[in-house]
Amino acid sequence: MTVRWARRTSGMKTSEIREILKLTQRPGMISFAGGLPAAELFPVEEMGEVVQEVLERDGHAALQYSTTEGDPALRGAVARRMNRILGTSVEPDQILITSGSQQGLDLSGKLFLDEGDAVLCESPTYLGAINAFRGYEPRFVEVPTDEDGMIIRELERCLAEHDLIKLAYVVPDFQNPTGRTWSLERRKAFLELVARHGIPVLEDNPYGELRFDGQAVPSLKALDEHGLVVFLGTFSKTFCPGLRIGWLAAEPELREKYVMIKQGVDLHTSTLGQRLIAVYLERFGLDADTTRIRGAYRRRRDAMLRAMDESFPPGVRYNRPRGGMFLWVELPEGVNARTVLERSLERGVAFVPGGSFFPNGGHENTMRLNFTAMPEERIVEGVRRLTAALHEVMAGGMPAAATVGVEVAEPPQ
Amino acid sequence: MTVRWARRTSGMKTSEIREILKLTQRPGMISFAGGLPAAELFPVEEMGEVVQEVLERDGHAALQYSTTEGDPALRGAVARRMNRILGTSVEPDQILITSGSQQGLDLSGKLFLDEGDAVLCESPTYLGAINAFRGYEPRFVEVPTDEDGMIIRELERCLAEHDLIKLAYVVPDFQNPTGRTWSLERRKAFLELVARHGIPVLEDNPYGELRFDGQAVPSLKALDEHGLVVFLGTFSKTFCPGLRIGWLAAEPELREKYVMIKQGVDLHTSTLGQRLIAVYLERFGLDADTTRIRGAYRRRRDAMLRAMDESFPPGVRYNRPRGGMFLWVELPEGVNARTVLERSLERGVAFVPGGSFFPNGGHENTMRLNFTAMPEERIVEGVRRLTAALHEVMAGGMPAAATVGVEVAEPPQ
Repeated sequence: MTVRWARRTSGMKTSEIREILKLTQRPGMISFAGGLPAAELFPVEEMGEVVQEVLERDGHAALQYSTTEGDPALRGAVARRMNRILGTSVEPDQILITSGSQQGLDLSGKLFLDEGDAVLCESPTYLGAINAFRGYEPRFVEVPTDEDGMIIRELERCLAEHDLIKLAYVVPDFQNPTGRTWSLERRKAFLELVARHGIPVLEDNPYGELRFDGQAVPSLKALDEHGLVVFLGTFSKTFCPGLRIGWLAAEPELREKYVMIKQGVDLHTSTLGQRLIAVYLERFGLDADTTRIRGAYRRRRDAMLRAMDESFPPGVRYNRPRGGMFLWVELPEGVNARTVLERSLERGVAFVPGGSFFPNGGHENTMRLNFTAMPEERIVEGVRRLTAALHEVMAGGMPAAATVGVEVAEPPQ
Repeated sequence: MTVRWARRTSGMKTSEIREILKLTQRPGMISFAGGLPAAELFPVEEMGEVVQEVLERDGHAALQYSTTEGDPALRGAVARRMNRILGTSVEPDQILITSGSQQGLDLSGKLFLDEGDAVLCESPTYLGAINAFRGYEPRFVEVPTDEDGMIIRELERCLAEHDLIKLAYVVPDFQNPTGRTWSLERRKAFLELVARHGIPVLEDNPYGELRFDGQAVPSLKALDEHGLVVFLGTFSKTFCPGLRIGWLAAEPELREKYVMIKQGVDLHTSTLGQRLIAVYLERFGLDADTTRIRGAYRRRRDAMLRAMDESFPPGVRYNRPRGGMFLWVELPEGVNARTVLERSLERGVAFVPGGSFFPNGGHENTMRLNFTAMPEERIVEGVRRLTAALHEVMAGGMPAAATVGVEVAEPPQ
């Protein structure tokens, strides 16, 4: 068979993370690779009650087709929760329920990007966004970042040097992959600059509620005075990822365009899944869940940082995120994280080399470590093994790749 | 705000059906417009049992991220069911679970279509497919059809006249919008011709199991000798549409490409939704459900045809589908179905003008009637009112459009 694929498929590849995650299925493997939430914290018992209530209240409607916009009760609850927690002033009619916030990325690519257009993003940025946008054949304009977010001077340079920037994509809170959170000053300066250029902003905020310490910084959506910010939210980090329910909040004109595009993509998101979350929110809220999750993740982050502080070789730098699921490691120049990964996998520890998160390549001396998927004693043991791999490679060692054919759970990348 | 949309959005519009469906939310409206299954036939009680079992067996896994490919148990059950009912020989690893079969259409557009490429389709064809493909800016090459499917002589002409045909999209069983089923001879001739041109085929089969009388005709997938057919299936017509679970079956190389694309689009389909269907299939199968649904829909089709036979004006032609959810009406040349719709809506009856289903326009004297969403007495009353509208328009009358702002359930169009 010699069928001809669309041109865009030549730029796509199965993500490296997916291949690494396959390895994490091996027995005994300690994984710092994926972005899996801790499943033992899911409210399974409460979900049993909620399902019965949904089926008893109006089971036929819960199993029937529904609107592209999404369940009105859920949209109302999402808007109220956003306004309470983020200080936004969003109406239920500005919400579109999506099939996970990954769908929000794909819909945004479809809405804004012609081939050759540019997406402005943090350097590094979320790999799932890179993959979603690649389906629309854009260029990526990477803006260098530091611990406070996008560097404004660099942003100014990028805006001056590049044309056809149709979309800015950012993760200002506990970013994937770095765990970094933007300062208020950076947020304001960023919004002012993109507004001057009329560039719509996709604010992806899956981790904002997972703050362990320090004060929350206002979201871009709350600071937006020009209606340019499209906010992407999800229940995958504060509730259950397996339901695949997220949302976007946008100005009415924008939201109508998104609705039209979603119609062609999957008609609407699972009616049952939406009602389950709506009734769960009504009966239990999410505050107890997020408190429980934050506590567990804080302990895991602390365990990881403590172990790293005690054992990592000199010259290896890393940050101390105040929330989220990831931290970011920079190895000395010239040390390749992919080589470290090979040595590390031999010792039963997986992580993701940071180079994957730079759409235009480079930065092979960086690593992303997830601290939420393993209990504390496994984290400590994993850091011990990873340290041994680092010592070996930094003393000089050679690679030997390996892959196996296992299917794996697909967390955001 | 003056953001710039992607070029493809200029070819998109909110579907006319969506606007008509809004009107069907009015109290007392009789709808022949949507493609809604009869919700009163959904197995709500059994679903309650199944949910408890899923949560008890391994609730944490049912709420966690899962694989892009889909639940292995569900893929196994789908492959076995396809092979038993359709006579295919599909392996579980050739199945990809999709977020409704609408997603299979979008993924196919993304996989095969560059802007300006051609999609070969039946004339008329499924509006949801037109909408999904429009996201990739193709041309549509419409092949004229009759009651036995695509007219082979016309297919030959189209293949000779058009280049860059990258995909053929067909609904050979109880097609939406016409209710037509292709003969075996047409299927074989079609497959031979597209194979000669190396064109991959998307066989969309949501209605195949809804046969009321006569013998099933082998599916294209079962007849395919060249690995060119991608089969799209769904649980939305034989089970519950609200779960948004469909699948595609394709040769391994093709299926791998689809998996890669789906990864960027929504990571994976609802874990919980997939497990519910897998366990439902294991405990109850679908044979009893499809038998119950077929019986109810047959009675509704019969009620509609009987009423039409008794009252429709001379010169109005319509077919007698042996299954599915729709039948197709042709008015005398020069009678505009949109005018009939306006008169009909005034009388509280909605349907979809057939012109919507021709991607290149025309054919304004056609109508699609759905016979599954209303009980028999409402169908009879609806045909009575529709007949009055037909008489009025065919005797000469003028239009006056109306729309209202209500959100509506989003059945396939």
